[in-house]
Amino acid sequence: MIEIERKFLVKNDSYKELAFSEKRIVQGFLNTHPERTVRVRIKGEKGFLTIKGKGNSTGTTRFEWEKEIALPEAEALLKLCEEGVIAKKRYEVKVADHIFEVDEFYDNNKGLTIAEVELTDEQENFLKPDWVGVEVTGEIKYYNSQLSRNPYKDW
Amino acid sequence: MIEIERKFLVKNDSYKELAFSEKRIVQGFLNTHPERTVRVRIKGEKGFLTIKGKGNSTGTTRFEWEKEIALPEAEALLKLCEEGVIAKKRYEVKVADHIFEVDEFYDNNKGLTIAEVELTDEQENFLKPDWVGVEVTGEIKYYNSQLSRNPYKDW
Repeated sequence: MIEIERKFLVKNDSYKELAFSEKRIVQGFLNTHPERTVRVRIKGEKGFLTIKGKGNSTGTTRFEWEKEIALPEAEALLKLCEEGVIAKKRYEVKVADHIFEVDEFYDNNKGLTIAEVELTDEQENFLKPDWVGVEVTGEIKYYNSQLSRNPYKDW
Repeated sequence: MIEIERKFLVKNDSYKELAFSEKRIVQGFLNTHPERTVRVRIKGEKGFLTIKGKGNSTGTTRFEWEKEIALPEAEALLKLCEEGVIAKKRYEVKVADHIFEVDEFYDNNKGLTIAEVELTDEQENFLKPDWVGVEVTGEIKYYNSQLSRNPYKDW
């Protein structure tokens, strides 16, 4: 229930041809407070409810609780969400021993692409591919909950 | 997923000897917004996550989604909640064909007791026992989410 991950901006599209999976994600938030975000997500054909707590001082680790829920339930809950539903495509790319999740945002966040790598501990090493740029781990404005309120096009 | 219920203040303690079940409830909120409350509840030995939408014009019907979750997960999620955890005892009382849920509040809401009866449609008739007083259906200040922010002792 503790998620450890690092987050980077993406410099170019070369991750696309390396991806082993692509899924459309639509998600909304029942709460966008960074200390208790409540997210409703439809990923491909599946629904999920996810609750996240506050990040640690570096923003690398964060409490996370997730349950798969039925698709019609996710669709109903999405209607209750705050304005600012996020649509994006998620690419999964294997780089050496790690999987990078690359999110290409649409609509009001078009132009933004973020890569995340999940780690088993904060000090774990990983290979940084050349399409990965500046690190943004822990920067709250890059939280999806914040992108739904203050999208990239308004920056 | 639509909850239809009516809510009343309770005039005296006589429901207690009629109750067929008593359970302690502790609950907190990940969001107290009346249009999208997210509640974490421990009831007896079980955990629940509940999401409620906005009430209709009379406040009688409201969208509700609920999932049972493991007790340790509910305990962990309770720690993420906003300040103002609610503790109460719930008594269940059968009155003719209906079950009244009577909540006796503790701590900052001590002195407040509320009875709810769930209906299958808005026009359904039910017997109102003599310990049931003024109707408060749809009055937002009696929502538990609001009692956690603005408790009875401050009224």
